[in-house]
Amino acid sequence: MLIYESTLRSFTQNIFLSMGCSDEHAALAADVLLLSDLRGIDSHGVARLIGYVRLWENKRINTKPNITIVHETPTTATVDGDAGLGLVVAPFAMRLAIQKAEQYGSGWVSVRNSNHFGIAGYHTLMAVEKDMIGFAMTNASPLVAPTFSNERLLGTNPMCYAFPAGKYPPVVVDMATSAAANGKLEIAQRMGKKVPEGWIQDAKGDVTTDPHALKNGGSLLPLGGDREHGSHKGFGLSATVDILSAVLSGANYGPWVPPFVSFLEPPADPVGLGIGHFVGAMRVDGFRPVDEFKAHLDNWIARFKSASTIDPNQKVIIPGEPELEAEIDRRKNGIPLVDEVVNDLNGLATRFGLSHI
Amino acid sequence: MLIYESTLRSFTQNIFLSMGCSDEHAALAADVLLLSDLRGIDSHGVARLIGYVRLWENKRINTKPNITIVHETPTTATVDGDAGLGLVVAPFAMRLAIQKAEQYGSGWVSVRNSNHFGIAGYHTLMAVEKDMIGFAMTNASPLVAPTFSNERLLGTNPMCYAFPAGKYPPVVVDMATSAAANGKLEIAQRMGKKVPEGWIQDAKGDVTTDPHALKNGGSLLPLGGDREHGSHKGFGLSATVDILSAVLSGANYGPWVPPFVSFLEPPADPVGLGIGHFVGAMRVDGFRPVDEFKAHLDNWIARFKSASTIDPNQKVIIPGEPELEAEIDRRKNGIPLVDEVVNDLNGLATRFGLSHI
Repeated sequence: MLIYESTLRSFTQNIFLSMGCSDEHAALAADVLLLSDLRGIDSHGVARLIGYVRLWENKRINTKPNITIVHETPTTATVDGDAGLGLVVAPFAMRLAIQKAEQYGSGWVSVRNSNHFGIAGYHTLMAVEKDMIGFAMTNASPLVAPTFSNERLLGTNPMCYAFPAGKYPPVVVDMATSAAANGKLEIAQRMGKKVPEGWIQDAKGDVTTDPHALKNGGSLLPLGGDREHGSHKGFGLSATVDILSAVLSGANYGPWVPPFVSFLEPPADPVGLGIGHFVGAMRVDGFRPVDEFKAHLDNWIARFKSASTIDPNQKVIIPGEPELEAEIDRRKNGIPLVDEVVNDLNGLATRFGLSHI
Repeated sequence: MLIYESTLRSFTQNIFLSMGCSDEHAALAADVLLLSDLRGIDSHGVARLIGYVRLWENKRINTKPNITIVHETPTTATVDGDAGLGLVVAPFAMRLAIQKAEQYGSGWVSVRNSNHFGIAGYHTLMAVEKDMIGFAMTNASPLVAPTFSNERLLGTNPMCYAFPAGKYPPVVVDMATSAAANGKLEIAQRMGKKVPEGWIQDAKGDVTTDPHALKNGGSLLPLGGDREHGSHKGFGLSATVDILSAVLSGANYGPWVPPFVSFLEPPADPVGLGIGHFVGAMRVDGFRPVDEFKAHLDNWIARFKSASTIDPNQKVIIPGEPELEAEIDRRKNGIPLVDEVVNDLNGLATRFGLSHI
């Protein structure tokens, strides 16, 4: 099913309004989810709407949060999201980082007591619009084992860096620090396909290609897959995300991160509040004139785009380029939704007495 | 050969003095190299001394640099290293970042016109000593191909994040963004061993296990190895390092980065000055009280150290832990040097009329 952006946007907004969000929060939360669907990151868009509703039903999401700054210097701050939607808490934090950057060159905000914040790219692009470099990361439900362990202690903990270019679109590096994101596993599960070695291990820690291994006590592997191929680096990046997002802010970290799915209870012995994010913004002109930076980034992009290729039909992909191509296509032609998601959305509509999509 | 730290330090210092460095710069440059040898990162310590001398002989390193701040806001700056040793330019930049952080909470410095800066961990640990979180990255000689390409366009571009803990040593994530660092390849070459699939490709872009492939037009692969295992993420991280270090500062980037080895000429059409670094510091107490952060980071470390293991003899390794163990051992028992390095060092001693080691 293909659906126009505007239709899906007002539908999503109405769900958030029905959950008790203010007009402003409902519009913002819908905007974050929609950008994910527009950019082709289907796993993080409206497909997750039902997940947010279930968490709200379980009183784990507060739709009327009092988001506060609990600690601050001119260029750093800790924000408490009051158990609000990460979809509104993270933009609050990024606006604060941008304000600080406007005044002092850079701004950095660590966030506690939040929930899933959608795609990291949304938040970094807020900075890019102001000719700033954007940073965003978040910790997440524990699914990934550190190198040498068979215990799920880390989330897929994404990190994102975004840079404004000139004639080219922004460079947006937005990546899970695990070898494969959970969404890819779900696709393999649905299609009954095996997954490549190096994505997951079973409960004992043995290599497996069974996409269902995660449900049976297995775990995702850090980027690199095994020690020989640098999984300690993926683990180190994931640890960095966890520490900046949660140890620094006072959120839960490691195995204490509350799971996104509502049928799993959060750990009974939390070490902090909710989940954590870390966002930042740096003014490009804090380092060199914006037009100089953009001209050189354009030159960088042009050089990599014209790199000699192994397969003549497969060019080098600039980070963020496929997402922008999807966005242009989907803004014009509509967003494809699989039946499963349409059913979920219509179920939510029924629950709230709204029209089906 | 085992050599005591103090002996190797004064030897190294004397070489730098003979190259025309000031007392202060010679001591600092030696300190950076020695910490690498002490921490067991043999590839980046005195083994590289001959490389710095050769670059100086080729007039590509200026041992009397006038390091300047060319652009600045309260929390950001661009530093020009005046073609100096990265071993002294990067600490200058990190001191500036720390000063800014002391005043405003955080400080970020992009560096152009520099050279190889040794181990990134040295610079981040300068911040950790002040109860700050340290960031350091650098671009480097092009040896790595982006995903889908067989062209060497990126360096092993390391990134490093360091965090002060309480009773445990600092967490130091210090990693090349390639699947394997060049040093590991050199070891395989010396020992006549094959390397694992996923480290390198040959000139055509085909998988190879021949450690000499790099000399025949092959390239290192980004962390992840191939697209299916996330090499686009390693490419994205490496791109991030290149942009923050060089596009932002006005250094050379991508294939224009001047090679570290003196027998290869720098590109004739530079897009900037020298190589680039990016360093930063954030005060922990810009986010939460230092003792709270350290107590939680200790708890994080303890939890990961006690993680259930796949092999009972192989515990989870906290980033930075093996390096600290090496440091404790080598400070006491001396630093092991292979014959090749001893010969190189004695050759340098002869060249400068100094005593052999």
